[in-house]
Amino acid sequence: MSAKIPVGILGATGIVGQRFVQMLEHHPWFEVAWLAASDRSEGRSYEEAARWKLPTEIPTDVARMQVSSARPDGAPRLIFAALDASIAAELEPRFAEAGCAVVSNSSALRMHPDVPLVIPEVNADHIQLIDNQTWRKKSGGFVVTNPNCSAIGLVMALAPLEHKFGLETVMAVTMQAISGAGYPGVASLDILGNVIPYIPKEEEKMEEETRKLLGHRNGNGIRPATFGMSAQCNRVAVEDGHTESVSIKLKSRATAEQIIAAWQEFRSEPQQLKLPNAPPQPVRYLSAPDRPQPRLDADSGAGMTACVGRLRPCGVLDWKFTALSHNTIRGAAGAAVLNAELLKVRGYLS
Amino acid sequence: MSAKIPVGILGATGIVGQRFVQMLEHHPWFEVAWLAASDRSEGRSYEEAARWKLPTEIPTDVARMQVSSARPDGAPRLIFAALDASIAAELEPRFAEAGCAVVSNSSALRMHPDVPLVIPEVNADHIQLIDNQTWRKKSGGFVVTNPNCSAIGLVMALAPLEHKFGLETVMAVTMQAISGAGYPGVASLDILGNVIPYIPKEEEKMEEETRKLLGHRNGNGIRPATFGMSAQCNRVAVEDGHTESVSIKLKSRATAEQIIAAWQEFRSEPQQLKLPNAPPQPVRYLSAPDRPQPRLDADSGAGMTACVGRLRPCGVLDWKFTALSHNTIRGAAGAAVLNAELLKVRGYLS
Amino acid sequence: MSAKIPVGILGATGIVGQRFVQMLEHHPWFEVAWLAASDRSEGRSYEEAARWKLPTEIPTDVARMQVSSARPDGAPRLIFAALDASIAAELEPRFAEAGCAVVSNSSALRMHPDVPLVIPEVNADHIQLIDNQTWRKKSGGFVVTNPNCSAIGLVMALAPLEHKFGLETVMAVTMQAISGAGYPGVASLDILGNVIPYIPKEEEKMEEETRKLLGHRNGNGIRPATFGMSAQCNRVAVEDGHTESVSIKLKSRATAEQIIAAWQEFRSEPQQLKLPNAPPQPVRYLSAPDRPQPRLDADSGAGMTACVGRLRPCGVLDWKFTALSHNTIRGAAGAAVLNAELLKVRGYLS
Amino acid sequence: MSAKIPVGILGATGIVGQRFVQMLEHHPWFEVAWLAASDRSEGRSYEEAARWKLPTEIPTDVARMQVSSARPDGAPRLIFAALDASIAAELEPRFAEAGCAVVSNSSALRMHPDVPLVIPEVNADHIQLIDNQTWRKKSGGFVVTNPNCSAIGLVMALAPLEHKFGLETVMAVTMQAISGAGYPGVASLDILGNVIPYIPKEEEKMEEETRKLLGHRNGNGIRPATFGMSAQCNRVAVEDGHTESVSIKLKSRATAEQIIAAWQEFRSEPQQLKLPNAPPQPVRYLSAPDRPQPRLDADSGAGMTACVGRLRPCGVLDWKFTALSHNTIRGAAGAAVLNAELLKVRGYLS
Repeated sequence: MSAKIPVGILGATGIVGQRFVQMLEHHPWFEVAWLAASDRSEGRSYEEAARWKLPTEIPTDVARMQVSSARPDGAPRLIFAALDASIAAELEPRFAEAGCAVVSNSSALRMHPDVPLVIPEVNADHIQLIDNQTWRKKSGGFVVTNPNCSAIGLVMALAPLEHKFGLETVMAVTMQAISGAGYPGVASLDILGNVIPYIPKEEEKMEEETRKLLGHRNGNGIRPATFGMSAQCNRVAVEDGHTESVSIKLKSRATAEQIIAAWQEFRSEPQQLKLPNAPPQPVRYLSAPDRPQPRLDADSGAGMTACVGRLRPCGVLDWKFTALSHNTIRGAAGAAVLNAELLKVRGYLS
Repeated sequence: MSAKIPVGILGATGIVGQRFVQMLEHHPWFEVAWLAASDRSEGRSYEEAARWKLPTEIPTDVARMQVSSARPDGAPRLIFAALDASIAAELEPRFAEAGCAVVSNSSALRMHPDVPLVIPEVNADHIQLIDNQTWRKKSGGFVVTNPNCSAIGLVMALAPLEHKFGLETVMAVTMQAISGAGYPGVASLDILGNVIPYIPKEEEKMEEETRKLLGHRNGNGIRPATFGMSAQCNRVAVEDGHTESVSIKLKSRATAEQIIAAWQEFRSEPQQLKLPNAPPQPVRYLSAPDRPQPRLDADSGAGMTACVGRLRPCGVLDWKFTALSHNTIRGAAGAAVLNAELLKVRGYLS
Repeated sequence: MSAKIPVGILGATGIVGQRFVQMLEHHPWFEVAWLAASDRSEGRSYEEAARWKLPTEIPTDVARMQVSSARPDGAPRLIFAALDASIAAELEPRFAEAGCAVVSNSSALRMHPDVPLVIPEVNADHIQLIDNQTWRKKSGGFVVTNPNCSAIGLVMALAPLEHKFGLETVMAVTMQAISGAGYPGVASLDILGNVIPYIPKEEEKMEEETRKLLGHRNGNGIRPATFGMSAQCNRVAVEDGHTESVSIKLKSRATAEQIIAAWQEFRSEPQQLKLPNAPPQPVRYLSAPDRPQPRLDADSGAGMTACVGRLRPCGVLDWKFTALSHNTIRGAAGAAVLNAELLKVRGYLS
Repeated sequence: MSAKIPVGILGATGIVGQRFVQMLEHHPWFEVAWLAASDRSEGRSYEEAARWKLPTEIPTDVARMQVSSARPDGAPRLIFAALDASIAAELEPRFAEAGCAVVSNSSALRMHPDVPLVIPEVNADHIQLIDNQTWRKKSGGFVVTNPNCSAIGLVMALAPLEHKFGLETVMAVTMQAISGAGYPGVASLDILGNVIPYIPKEEEKMEEETRKLLGHRNGNGIRPATFGMSAQCNRVAVEDGHTESVSIKLKSRATAEQIIAAWQEFRSEPQQLKLPNAPPQPVRYLSAPDRPQPRLDADSGAGMTACVGRLRPCGVLDWKFTALSHNTIRGAAGAAVLNAELLKVRGYLS
C-alpha cells in the first residue's frame, strides 16, 4: 500500500481535471484514488470517459480507473474540484458537509466570506478562514479556493509591489488562451484568426478576486484591498497562457530597478516550505523587449512561475508592464495542488 | 484616353502598395499610371515583382505594368507612398521637391510641424499646413500623411467624444493584426498560437499621433491635444483588423446613451462631400456583447468604418470600450486614398 | 409585390443557412420569404435566432423575419435545405411529399437511386431522375441534392479530364476547412496549431458521391463511374476552402498542356445558360508553383470556381495536382443555388 | 574536466541548432563545447546571437558560450551540422577533410553515393559507407547524414512493413509544420488560416531519400529500393509535427492485425543497444479513430517515436494510414544525435 494521501478529482474529465491527473502523476504526497464526473461518464474507465487533450500520455493506472458518480460516499477526504460554477455551487458544499477537504478551482464559493481565496505566495494567512466554516465545525470538511485564471498571474505580479510600495490603481487588459474556456469551449470558427473582446463575468471576477486576494484579515473576515481596479478581458488564438497588459499607480515612488528587484527577489511561504509544486522563483522578470510571450514563457517554472516584462513608464498612471501565466497550471490545477500542499503542511489534511 | 487623374504608387509591391492597387482599381477619379518599388523590382512587370497576397485578383492592366525606379522623373503628380519610414524619409521630400503631391502612409514625416497628419472625418482643416511647406512654395509639391494603423481606429472613436464631451485621459491596449507588419513581416513561428507584447516604436507613434490628430490649428501650426494618453501595443494571430481595449475619462459627464449617440450620429466632411471612399457611417456602435471582432467587423463599410462596442463603466476612469478598424484599408491605403479625395475636392491636385 | 420566386430555407440559422441568406440577398430570381430552424429558434427574429458568423452584414429584411417551425404548411414551394443528415432524412421527404421543390445540401438522400446528385457543370442531365420520384408523381414535390463539400471541388477538376481522356484511378487527400463542420463544429482546442486526420463518414461520401456524379444515365437510373477511387480526409486550421492533393491515372495519354487546356476551356450548361451564379470559368488553372491556396483562391469566381494547380507527373499514377474550392459556397449553399437556377430554367419550378 | 565527448554545432543559432543545444543539455555522452554560426554571430555570446525560440530555457553554460566562426580550426572532432544545403555543400566537406566526424542534418550530401543516409532503427548497416569516403581515408574525418524531416516519419512507418511484407507502392501526402522551414522561415501572412501546397524540392527529397533509406548494401554502395513512390508536400499552420496521409501496396498479403503488430513490435539496434535517445518504442500505433495528431502526439517518446494510426483498406492500393513524427526532433536534431550515438557505439568516434 502506498503511504501517499489518496485524493479525488471532481470534474475529472474536463481540461482542468486532466491537468490535475497530469500534475498528480508523480506527486510525492498525493495519489489519485477516485475520479468523478457527470452521470454520462459514470462507470466507464477514465480513458473512455475523458477525451484526453494533453500532449503527455494519460497515466496508465488512472486511465483504467473507473469513474464514480459525483457523490461523497466512497470519496477520499481530499478532493480537487474542477467543476463548472453552477454545479460547484451545489456539489462543493455537499462534499464539505460530508467531511471532505474540498480544494476548488471553481468560482462558485470564491467570494463567500468564510471561504479562503488563496495564492500561497500571496495570502497564505487567509487560509484560517477555514475555521469559520460551518462545515468545518460540523464534519471537519471545508472548502478552499484558488482564483480565476486571469486574476492569478496579475496578483502574483502585483503582490510584491503592493507589499513594498502600495498600490493605488490597477488597470489590466487580458489576452486569454482558449484552454481557459474548457472543452469543447471556444468554437474554432469564433477564434481562428480572431479576437473575442468578451468573456462572460470574467472582468467582474478579476476585479473582485484581485481585491480579496490582496486584502487583509480583519477579525474573522477579509477586508478587501481598496485600490482602484479595472479589467478588460479578451480571448485570443493561443492554446495556453494568459497575457496581460497592465498599468499601475503606486502609493510610494519606486524606480524601475526597485520594481524589478521586488519581482525578482520575491519569495514566500511555498518557497520557504519547499512545497513540491512551489516554483523556485514565483515571479520572473524577462528583460528582452518582446517578452513574456505565451508560446515561450507559459511553461516557465513548470508552468507555476508568473512572468513579467516590458516595465516602462505609463503616460497616465506610473508604470506599465506585461504579465503572463499558464492558465491551466498556475491558473487552475497547479494553483489548487499548491493550495493542498499548503493545507497539508499546515495540518488541515490530518 | 481616360479623363481620370493618373496616380503613382511608391512602394507598390508591399502589402499596403497592393491595397492601393486593389482600392484604385475602380476608382471614379484616380487611375494607376505608374508603379515604383525597390531596384530589385525595376523593369519587371508588376505581376512578377509583387507577390500578390490579396484574395481578390490582381487587376489585369496593372499586372502588366512595368515597375519604374523610385525617381520623380516620369512620375505623375499624385503619388501614393507606402514606403518603410527610413526610405520614406529620403524619397518623399525628393518627390515633393519635384512638384509631386505625396499622399503618404509612412511615419517619416507625420510629426513634421508643416506636414498635415489627417483623418478627413477628424481634422480636415489641418490640411492647410500644406501651405507652410517649402516644397509647396517652390515647386507646388507637398506631403500629406495619414496616421499609424493603430492610431486611426482609436482616433475615429475618440473624435466624436472629444468634440462633444472633451477628453481628459485615454488608455489603449492594442491587439494588432499581422498584416500591419508588411510582408514577409512577422515570422509564423513567432505568432502562431502566440501573442507578441511589443511592436517597435508603435506605442510612441500612437500616443503622439493621437494628440496631433485631435490637436487644433494655432497660427501656422498645430497645438496637440493635451489629454493624458498611454498605449500598449501587442501583436496577435489575426490577419486584418486591429482590436483595441480602451478606457477614457471625459471632461464633462456623459451617459452611455449620449456616448453611443455621439458615435452613431457622427458624420463629417467626407460624408457631406460624398467622397468616393467615405463610409456612410464612419463610426458604428455594435450592441452585441462580444463585438466588434476582427473576423466579423473589420470589413465594415468596405473596411473604412471604425467599429466600437462593449461600452461600460470603467472602475478607474469613466468608461471602457472596444474599438476595431481595418489596418490596411482604413489604417493605411484607404486612409491615404480618402486624403487624396479630400485634396482633390479642396483644389490641391489641380 | 416582388415578381421574384419566394424561397424558404430549412436550417436557416446554421453556417450553410447563413450562406444561403447571404447569397440570396441580391438574387435576380429568388427572394427569401420563409426561414425555418429548430424549435429553439421558432418565433424569434432571424437576427436573434442566428448567431451571424459572416463578415458581411446580415440583410436587414431577413434579420427581422420571424423564424418558422420546420413544417411544410406555410412554406413556399422552393426550399433550400441545410439540415444535419439525421434531421434531413426525416424532414426533406416530408416537404417533398407536401409538394415542395427541396434543393438540399444534406447527405441524407444523395445516394437514393431516384434523387439526383448534381453539379450543373458536370451532370446536369441527372436532374431527370426527379421524374422517377414518387413525391413528384403524387404532389409535384421532389428532392435534388448537391454533393459533399469535399467531393465538389474534386469532381469539378475531374470532369473535364473524364470527358476528354477517361479516368482509371483517382486518389485524393483533403485538407478541409473548419467551416465545413458547421457551428460550433470543431472545438478550437482540437484544431488550433493542429491537424485532425479524421472526419466521420467523409471519405465514404467522397468516394461514392464522386462515382455517382461522374456516372451515366442508364434507363431510369444512374450507373456510377467505375474508376478506382480512394480518399483520405483531414481537417486543418483554415476558415474556408478545402485543399486537396490529388493523383490520377487516365485511360488515354494526355500531356500537361492538354490537361491544363481541358481545365481552362471547360465550360458547360450553367455558363451557356448564363445562370446567375454560374462562374464564367468553372475550373481555373493557376500556374504559380505554390497555388491554389485557400486564403488567396477560395473566393475565386465569387467562391464558385474550382482552382487547380501544380500539375506534375506522379511517380505511381500518371499525374498529380492540387485542387481547391470554397466549401460553404461552391461546396454547399452556392451549389444548391446553382442547382435551383438550373431547375428554374428547365421548368421544374413552375 | 568532464569525461564527456566535446561536440560542436555548426549552424547553432537556427531552429535545428537550438534543438541540438536543447537535446544535448543533459546528454550522458556528449557535451556542447563549440558553437559556430554565420559571420554576423561570430564573437557574440550564444544567447545574443541566437533568438531562442524554444519553450524551455536556454542552458546557462551554452548561453554564455562565444560563437566561433565556421572554420574547422579549434573545432572538436564531433560536429553536428544544421546548415542550409548550399552552405553545407561547402562547409561539411571542409570539416570532414579536417578530420571531423560530421553528423549532418543537411540535404547537401545525403544522396552522395559514399555518404550514409541513416535512421538507426532502419538501416544502421549503411553506416559502413563511411569507409568509402576519401576524407575518412585521408584524415579520419567523415560525413553521416539523416533524412529530410518529411521522409523520416514515413520511413519509420514503412520499414517494419518492408521487412515483413515487402513494399510495392507508396503514396504520401504531407501536412508539414512551419518549424521545418527554419526561422524566420514561413511568413505568418502566408500560413495563418492557410495551406501552402508547395515546399521547394521537398517531394523530390522524400522520394529519393525513402528509396535510399530502404535500399540495400550492394558491394561498396547502396542499391535503392525499387518500389513505386509518389509524394505531395503541403505546409500547414502547425508548429511542430509533420502529418502524412499514406497509401501502400504490399508485396505479400497482410491483415490489419499483422500490420499493426509489425509496427507495435518493431524494435531495432538503437533499442537493443539502449542508445540514450532511442525511444523504447520506435513506432507506435494509436487506435483512436482521430489520431495521431501533431498537438497531441508529436512529443511521443520525447519526440523520437513515429506515431501511426487510422489503418484501413485503400480503394486503390492495399492500405491507407496516417503517420506523424516530430520534425525538429525525430526529423532533425534528434535524428542526428541518435546517429552520433550509433557512431560512438560502433567505434567511429574514437
